[in-house]
Amino acid sequence: MNFVEERIVMDGVVRPKGVLKVDAFLNHQMDMEFLDAIALEFTKRFAGTPVTKVLTIEASGIAIAASVARELKVPLVVAKKTRSMNLDGDLYVAEVLSFSHKNINTIVVGKKYLSEGEQILIIDDIMANGCAMQGLISIVEDAEAHVAGCGVVIEKAFQEGSDRIRNLGYRLESLAIIKSMDSETGKITFAE
Amino acid sequence: MNFVEERIVMDGVVRPKGVLKVDAFLNHQMDMEFLDAIALEFTKRFAGTPVTKVLTIEASGIAIAASVARELKVPLVVAKKTRSMNLDGDLYVAEVLSFSHKNINTIVVGKKYLSEGEQILIIDDIMANGCAMQGLISIVEDAEAHVAGCGVVIEKAFQEGSDRIRNLGYRLESLAIIKSMDSETGKITFAE
Repeated sequence: MNFVEERIVMDGVVRPKGVLKVDAFLNHQMDMEFLDAIALEFTKRFAGTPVTKVLTIEASGIAIAASVARELKVPLVVAKKTRSMNLDGDLYVAEVLSFSHKNINTIVVGKKYLSEGEQILIIDDIMANGCAMQGLISIVEDAEAHVAGCGVVIEKAFQEGSDRIRNLGYRLESLAIIKSMDSETGKITFAE
Repeated sequence: MNFVEERIVMDGVVRPKGVLKVDAFLNHQMDMEFLDAIALEFTKRFAGTPVTKVLTIEASGIAIAASVARELKVPLVVAKKTRSMNLDGDLYVAEVLSFSHKNINTIVVGKKYLSEGEQILIIDDIMANGCAMQGLISIVEDAEAHVAGCGVVIEKAFQEGSDRIRNLGYRLESLAIIKSMDSETGKITFAE
């Protein structure tokens, strides 16, 4: 097991219906040393890939994406969730269905923060159904920028998101790939 | 002018009704070097004050608070906004009126992430009416933890939030204090 898998086993909690709680260290209380180790791992995996900006979506991926942007010395852009149609200025817009919250969010990025030809690394905490990632990808493509790659800390491979992203031809790097989880025993099985 | 005031003058945009857009560097696109300089300034100002955790509220303060937590080598806790009453586990809860979005959010923190006697430094990007900060303070006090201090990057001193927090006896450090703004001329006047 790598350091991310070890931490998930130690501090993660498996709940019914494919829910994994990683509140204790990743997305409610955050261990900054752990986040920086994650950032270092992403920069290793994407070494040699030009990146001009890191893009994430609010809220639970922000601290992780900020660590990655710091490590790569590039700006971070955070797509905002909004239910408001009263959007100000020129925006790229996508619709995203949330697995955790079972609702649809409109996500937006100001047009001036993504430019044609930029190399965008998309970072998020968890990939479940992949809708957030697809929304971010569609925004990057609307901007005529290039998806340099996608990185998630935890991929729930038993849900459809990761296959969907890879089938679309994007490079997805997941630091921990969960093949299955059992909420009765708490057992988590990772991909090799 | 200090480096925060200079950046606001350079890249901020004054809008009518007391709105200041700092999207370009602070809360939509983020300049990580600038965020780290902010974190260093907060740690200088709170030097000698024991801090066991940094607390913020999603979403726009997260990257800043993460930089501060990294600098102080303590965990970051992010209060979550929710409209759902279907909250899972033991939570501290507060109600917060948003100045930007004109709605009321319920904010929650898992009880296991704030303990009695802890020293909590509360960090946010902007203080307008102070409701977010008051909600965070009430959560810290519900936990019988201690508010070590409150830090915001930008204080809009012409709104009531900062007076309210200071009148309640809390230490508030603001890196840029805006006395007035004129949306017609774009002129921003800072406190000395």
